[in-house]
Amino acid sequence: MSARVSRPVLVVHGTDRPGIVAAVTRVLADFEANIVSLDQYSSDPVGGQFFQRTEFNVPDFIAIKPQLEAALAAVVGDELGLTWTLSDIAVPKRVAILASLTDHNLLDLLWRQRRGEINMSVPMVISNHTVVAEDVRGFNVPFFHVESQGADKSAAEKEILALLKGNADLVVLARYMQILSDDFIERLGVPVINIHHSFLPAFIGASPYRKAKERGVKLVGATAHYVTKDLDEGPIIEQDVVRVDHADTVEALTRKGAEVERQVLSRAVQWHCDDRIIRAGHQTIVF
Amino acid sequence: MSARVSRPVLVVHGTDRPGIVAAVTRVLADFEANIVSLDQYSSDPVGGQFFQRTEFNVPDFIAIKPQLEAALAAVVGDELGLTWTLSDIAVPKRVAILASLTDHNLLDLLWRQRRGEINMSVPMVISNHTVVAEDVRGFNVPFFHVESQGADKSAAEKEILALLKGNADLVVLARYMQILSDDFIERLGVPVINIHHSFLPAFIGASPYRKAKERGVKLVGATAHYVTKDLDEGPIIEQDVVRVDHADTVEALTRKGAEVERQVLSRAVQWHCDDRIIRAGHQTIVF
Amino acid sequence: MSARVSRPVLVVHGTDRPGIVAAVTRVLADFEANIVSLDQYSSDPVGGQFFQRTEFNVPDFIAIKPQLEAALAAVVGDELGLTWTLSDIAVPKRVAILASLTDHNLLDLLWRQRRGEINMSVPMVISNHTVVAEDVRGFNVPFFHVESQGADKSAAEKEILALLKGNADLVVLARYMQILSDDFIERLGVPVINIHHSFLPAFIGASPYRKAKERGVKLVGATAHYVTKDLDEGPIIEQDVVRVDHADTVEALTRKGAEVERQVLSRAVQWHCDDRIIRAGHQTIVF
Amino acid sequence: MSARVSRPVLVVHGTDRPGIVAAVTRVLADFEANIVSLDQYSSDPVGGQFFQRTEFNVPDFIAIKPQLEAALAAVVGDELGLTWTLSDIAVPKRVAILASLTDHNLLDLLWRQRRGEINMSVPMVISNHTVVAEDVRGFNVPFFHVESQGADKSAAEKEILALLKGNADLVVLARYMQILSDDFIERLGVPVINIHHSFLPAFIGASPYRKAKERGVKLVGATAHYVTKDLDEGPIIEQDVVRVDHADTVEALTRKGAEVERQVLSRAVQWHCDDRIIRAGHQTIVF
Repeated sequence: MSARVSRPVLVVHGTDRPGIVAAVTRVLADFEANIVSLDQYSSDPVGGQFFQRTEFNVPDFIAIKPQLEAALAAVVGDELGLTWTLSDIAVPKRVAILASLTDHNLLDLLWRQRRGEINMSVPMVISNHTVVAEDVRGFNVPFFHVESQGADKSAAEKEILALLKGNADLVVLARYMQILSDDFIERLGVPVINIHHSFLPAFIGASPYRKAKERGVKLVGATAHYVTKDLDEGPIIEQDVVRVDHADTVEALTRKGAEVERQVLSRAVQWHCDDRIIRAGHQTIVF
Repeated sequence: MSARVSRPVLVVHGTDRPGIVAAVTRVLADFEANIVSLDQYSSDPVGGQFFQRTEFNVPDFIAIKPQLEAALAAVVGDELGLTWTLSDIAVPKRVAILASLTDHNLLDLLWRQRRGEINMSVPMVISNHTVVAEDVRGFNVPFFHVESQGADKSAAEKEILALLKGNADLVVLARYMQILSDDFIERLGVPVINIHHSFLPAFIGASPYRKAKERGVKLVGATAHYVTKDLDEGPIIEQDVVRVDHADTVEALTRKGAEVERQVLSRAVQWHCDDRIIRAGHQTIVF
Repeated sequence: MSARVSRPVLVVHGTDRPGIVAAVTRVLADFEANIVSLDQYSSDPVGGQFFQRTEFNVPDFIAIKPQLEAALAAVVGDELGLTWTLSDIAVPKRVAILASLTDHNLLDLLWRQRRGEINMSVPMVISNHTVVAEDVRGFNVPFFHVESQGADKSAAEKEILALLKGNADLVVLARYMQILSDDFIERLGVPVINIHHSFLPAFIGASPYRKAKERGVKLVGATAHYVTKDLDEGPIIEQDVVRVDHADTVEALTRKGAEVERQVLSRAVQWHCDDRIIRAGHQTIVF
Repeated sequence: MSARVSRPVLVVHGTDRPGIVAAVTRVLADFEANIVSLDQYSSDPVGGQFFQRTEFNVPDFIAIKPQLEAALAAVVGDELGLTWTLSDIAVPKRVAILASLTDHNLLDLLWRQRRGEINMSVPMVISNHTVVAEDVRGFNVPFFHVESQGADKSAAEKEILALLKGNADLVVLARYMQILSDDFIERLGVPVINIHHSFLPAFIGASPYRKAKERGVKLVGATAHYVTKDLDEGPIIEQDVVRVDHADTVEALTRKGAEVERQVLSRAVQWHCDDRIIRAGHQTIVF
């Protein structure tokens, strides 16, 4: 049996000051780590916020990880006062997916997972409908149906939470047409990515393709963003657009937009699984 | 001296019904016209609005124009009850340009006119500043400075109107940073095209690039639209976007966006000059 | 049971001359047909080639079709000497797919067919491998395995031909890695669309992503084209590209390119099924 | 008088090994330099080539530059055996431009220089024609006419060399339609960037838009590359494309392509002036 090759990634962020890159990379060099790729961004030449993602190669990562963490805690945490996370992106993140009736985003993610395009496992798909059950199970992925009718969503949310809790590192809303409560998001405790079918902040809320048709825009788009308590206002991860014209009906916009939705959502999930995204207030740094 | 070759264009629109294309093209065929390109759109298979643009080639267009107009009036106007316009797009439209401090859209249009990329003449440039005067006159285009300070714009508008009246077939606002009154637009009597530096309807109003930076969008864009009494709400002619990222400052967004603004505005003006745009309520049909 | 609504499309091409549009649309008007969309192109204002696609709406198309065909034969065929075809694009075309090991183009087409994005039925998938058999049959599509080893492909081609003959209106090579003989193409008698994984004419032949990496290009692309006896030289239907950079490995180029391949191939097949493509020598007119 | 704010950039490349980033950034940290942006790329996780660009902020760069250079020579040069360059990108590079009859690329670069979009000065424009002389001088840029007729270009090249020698850090061929000899390139001693009006390697050589029309491609593009002794084969810096269709004449392709040429060339020159490009054999790393 061949062992998985580790792909350690170190993400560091906090208040900028001279010498951070040198100190961080010194720690890595002390462990004979070879840097594969390093991305760095400071929000201001002086006195800004500092962000760094470093992917490196080191012999026997799993064995040295505890010592490396201790060294990072001492230097990066204590001395420099920065936030850091060390992970192995070769270990697939567990990505649970919530969906409703529209299945193309859901199935696209499952295909990409199966083809190895996104480094994730999918522990379960939860839907308030049953139409996708058979397709999902065809991918050997557990499917759970949680009804969500009426104004009071608390029972449904409680049930979903019980399923997800401890079983997911990321939750993806693949055209899940239910608004999740702040309480749910908070208790869930892992990031949630949503795909909105418009180029935000244009056409916030319901029926964006219909609104786009009425406004007569010449491009339609899609936006993947982290979910916060403010609907459609969370930090944007990725956006893209496609050209449309006067002859496109709402159905045609929906079909052309679906293409963009799939690409935008899959890129966002892939970048998240590769630890390429750092949240900074209402925005994201994507390395 | 070689005569200009005519490029007649017939635009027809109104309530759809069977037989319109046949009737319209029959009239053209009776004059031995050869159709160079024909675009047609119906907003609905049954009972919608009908739009048609036909560019044709006919020997000695100027000589036969009166008879052709009479025939079109009889068949297309009286019999079919449709609106029609017949023009020769080889005759350059007179496009007056209003600008303020930002000069790139203005100069881009003047270059394209000089290179023959847009079939227009520029009878004058009017600005509430004088910084562009020398550049404009370097293109052999008259420059007029009309001050526009204080809350009351009526004197300035009156002066601009006196300059434009009868001298322009189209007015282009090339980053003209003054809001024109409804009364001005109405009395002007010719179409006005504006370039807005965002992907409308996102970031309506002032400082769109700053708003885009704050929202953390991953694309910035530009929108060319006809000016109506509703600010930034007129029929959209053309839009485009460019990719940006977290490292782009407001200045970088402005510079990247400027590239898109120039392309979008020049396409809109070119299509207008080629009689490719039909206004239909709050929208445009662009053939 | 609700009847399918007909969507008749008339395609006309041949030597241009004045009056063609009028004559053709006159025939349609005589049958009370309402034109839904009309596209026309002449390769030259005088003496060029004429191309027209007209989608129309007519009550009870199936009943009047014989008379309409007779009228078209008399006017468009005999009088004007033009080539014409009349079809109902609401009737799905039968699209057989040939594939090898790479499955993403194949499965993308099957998904689009299932979602109703492309107006086609898939009578069979044929492959020289068996890896995709289960997935294909999961879509309720027959799968046939035809081995194709060794230098002599004649037995394999004969077997494929026997399967396809009479059962397909279009054959799509969805990354089918076998070169088909001229004789096969000729005897097949229906159009064949291939997806080439580069922006043709760049990187003709095998391993285009590897060649792209070696040349250090900044974009990779894909090309859908009709298959002719000249390898990778058939009329191009659609092309698109995606941005890549120095850090992309051949595997990354392949993954990013796959995204473009799927879009380009699906658009080409969709346009073919909607009778939007007219072949004109080594080129295509796409309406 | 306000002093220019320095923007020092350190570029390092050579054989990869663990510890390079740490060592390089340690040197910078010892000088109290704050890293503004750091980009790094290794061509292979183990045993590849290493490339790093670091923009930093340091008080009084000009004063400490000699000591910093000594430290870099000792650590990066002697100890690590890597190639390095230290420059101040706030100091505009001197970019001489060679042009022929087509003026749009030339004038676009002059506009961008004037607007401050590209950090360069233009010491001179040289052309084998005189049509652009007046426009160039209108930008307060010296214009020199060097005739280049007949088969023997050695006299012209000698004259151009005499003008450029010592006066340019970069030479841009802005649609200069003369092939420069290997000897000229070698003796010139500074990089040369060319804009080719196709998506290389498609349509190498003359008349690419005509070839594109004949091949029936659906996109046309442009490529900016460093000039080497192999015509159209130098390392590619940037490429882009624009959509075209069957109705576009060669003139239309030329006009649409010109838009892309301007963007591609200006980006390439801007990146070069910002020391963002590292040549690596037949390829470029663009940070």
